[in-house]
Amino acid sequence: MNNKIGIGIAGLGTVGEGFLKQLKKYKTSNKKTSNFELINIAVKNLRKKRNVTTKNLPLIKDTLSLASNPKIDIVIELIGGSSGVAYKLVKKSLMNGKSIITANKALLAIHGNELIKIAEKNNCFISFEAAIAGGIPVVKAIRENLKFNEITKVYGILNGTCNYILTKMETEGKDFNSVLKDAQNLGFAELDPSFDIKGIDAAHKITLLSSLAFNVPVNFSSTYIEGIQNIEIDDFNLVREFGYKIKLLGIAKKKGNFYEQRVHPCLIKSESEIAKVDNELNAVVIEDKVIGKTTLIGPGAGANPTGAAVSADLIDYSRKNFNFPLGMPINVVQKLKNLKISDSNFSYYLRIIGKDEVGVMGRITGILARNKISIDEQKQQHYKKRGYASIVIITHNIKEKVMLKAIKEINNMKRINNKVKFIRIEKNL
Amino acid sequence: MNNKIGIGIAGLGTVGEGFLKQLKKYKTSNKKTSNFELINIAVKNLRKKRNVTTKNLPLIKDTLSLASNPKIDIVIELIGGSSGVAYKLVKKSLMNGKSIITANKALLAIHGNELIKIAEKNNCFISFEAAIAGGIPVVKAIRENLKFNEITKVYGILNGTCNYILTKMETEGKDFNSVLKDAQNLGFAELDPSFDIKGIDAAHKITLLSSLAFNVPVNFSSTYIEGIQNIEIDDFNLVREFGYKIKLLGIAKKKGNFYEQRVHPCLIKSESEIAKVDNELNAVVIEDKVIGKTTLIGPGAGANPTGAAVSADLIDYSRKNFNFPLGMPINVVQKLKNLKISDSNFSYYLRIIGKDEVGVMGRITGILARNKISIDEQKQQHYKKRGYASIVIITHNIKEKVMLKAIKEINNMKRINNKVKFIRIEKNL
Repeated sequence: MNNKIGIGIAGLGTVGEGFLKQLKKYKTSNKKTSNFELINIAVKNLRKKRNVTTKNLPLIKDTLSLASNPKIDIVIELIGGSSGVAYKLVKKSLMNGKSIITANKALLAIHGNELIKIAEKNNCFISFEAAIAGGIPVVKAIRENLKFNEITKVYGILNGTCNYILTKMETEGKDFNSVLKDAQNLGFAELDPSFDIKGIDAAHKITLLSSLAFNVPVNFSSTYIEGIQNIEIDDFNLVREFGYKIKLLGIAKKKGNFYEQRVHPCLIKSESEIAKVDNELNAVVIEDKVIGKTTLIGPGAGANPTGAAVSADLIDYSRKNFNFPLGMPINVVQKLKNLKISDSNFSYYLRIIGKDEVGVMGRITGILARNKISIDEQKQQHYKKRGYASIVIITHNIKEKVMLKAIKEINNMKRINNKVKFIRIEKNL
Repeated sequence: MNNKIGIGIAGLGTVGEGFLKQLKKYKTSNKKTSNFELINIAVKNLRKKRNVTTKNLPLIKDTLSLASNPKIDIVIELIGGSSGVAYKLVKKSLMNGKSIITANKALLAIHGNELIKIAEKNNCFISFEAAIAGGIPVVKAIRENLKFNEITKVYGILNGTCNYILTKMETEGKDFNSVLKDAQNLGFAELDPSFDIKGIDAAHKITLLSSLAFNVPVNFSSTYIEGIQNIEIDDFNLVREFGYKIKLLGIAKKKGNFYEQRVHPCLIKSESEIAKVDNELNAVVIEDKVIGKTTLIGPGAGANPTGAAVSADLIDYSRKNFNFPLGMPINVVQKLKNLKISDSNFSYYLRIIGKDEVGVMGRITGILARNKISIDEQKQQHYKKRGYASIVIITHNIKEKVMLKAIKEINNMKRINNKVKFIRIEKNL
């Protein structure tokens, strides 16, 4: 190893600082062999106070200059955001033959096909271990090991903020907003948490995992997305009685000629492997036709884990372990059709607040029966509001569009308070 | 990819058949790009009936000829055993510049240092994903990702046979011998299961994981080994009351200038992550200074998972993703001293069968007190044998050699039946 590897870093936020610390340590402990040379770090604000000493750092303001600096071989993009300067930088860098390491799931979920094509054309390395599940080496595990086994399903807890909020709601009985506030104070949630709690961040990640696993083009727009904003404490208490927990899952599945990508709250059996993955932890489960089920669990965010994933990618690059970003050329894609969620089948948890009067329950079960939706379990009890009953129904498997039609009919009943709440049940985890 | 890669396989047992099936499938589905060419499969018995059709297979009897066949670039050693033909074949192949993929943990645990040195000298690829935890890509995850984070501990459930036996003993209340018989009938245990149940197989694996994680030379002889033969059903029932489960763990730890490698039954808290890894499943947990804790769970054995690991290694080889077998040159080893188990500290579970007479308990606690061993919890109850009491003591942390001295003193008491049973408690999992 004599050839120097010129590094340009864009962005010095949480991940950037974490990575920088590790790069320093790596260079110190591998003095003889390390050929990494930090050329520039592009930041928005040169004077900003940071957690690292910036005194001897080669800070610059012109981010896009990284893409054309001949001393830079690899650009490490840690700005974030699917458009704007991150996109411009990555595209221009790749076009100039520079390799890319990024933690930016949004960018790849939106512009992945275009960027990967440029990378492959120019023989550039582009890796994104840090974009999914932080330090858990799941991107590499799929790309270089598991994908040869014909993966049929990949799913997991992909957003630490949501998992933290759901865990605290469940264990401490606090409502969504107050837990969110706590999470923000503790640094587990962003000040603008909407990307997390609306499921968009998890959707970026499951979109990329799906492409990695199934060799389908990156197709974010077809990912169904539902966040955790509407989960209430009552739901946790009710589902517990039926043996379930509530988790926000990202799920990508292949079946025959179809594949699906979705993010939504799920009821999962309390004894299932990932039901116990709590707080800010992430988990990814890969099911394939050869091995069966492989589960990876670890911290999914934070300066150190994410910085570690960037470091591992950089060492891969220095070892010339170049691979196609998705493990196979992006033009060799599988011709799978996207299955819309309305055509998918689920069991459902329904929560209905209705007047505690004769005939209400009969009316509801009548609607379900007419739609050929059969009931697996049910429970009725007094609701906290006097004169109302809380009805919980667990259905057998039924097509989503049929369920939604029946729910609409129930919502139209005069004696129903609020709208029917439903959460999909994810079986066989 | 135009250059053919000539493959020689040694051994066509369970793993060999699993791998062969996958190689066939891979070649079929990657017709245009695959450059794998199967040159020879060396088997002991050419006429043996097998689960794969051998009609068109290039079977040969002369195993060692693989090492000198100029058409063969990589030898896939699936014979097993730490000495004999496997050793000769691998050594000779490496000396002739051929690369190696092996599922043979025994071979590497015993002769790893020698073989890896030859491999590095001759720029040969040598990988062994299949040797540890079957299809779970843990070797690669440590070698190419996690080891840069300064791993402090790696541990896990490394032997599916033992985990299966312990799970069945616990859940079905059957004794060791009858569960072992069931396991053999179901194919979960070998006809000669001693390598598994005595902990030797797990010890081979933890020895290799330790070298991978800490960059210490492969040092099997320093690995402390204790199997599961002496665990009784009574133990499961008793530890449950204290919130524990019993698992056979392989553990490698680094602390200051010391490292330890050991395999023995452990009491672990029922709510710990790997306590729920049951039956034939394996789990590996890696703790490091950057990420924290990463857990990998999956099937650890069987034709398909192990074959899949061999396949992944082969694809790595074909992609020229050559790495040092341990992720770092074997001569750049850390100068760590081995910590003997007698100098390690544990909490202990002690089970004592003593005469149900005045003074017995006092005598035992007296011995413990004199040795400065303090008691955390204890329970005394009638033993199934009339006139005897079963005493369970959970101690606080104490050095193993002190504990063993105290146990010897208790064993010398006249009113003690059998020897004191003890199981180490593994905290902070």
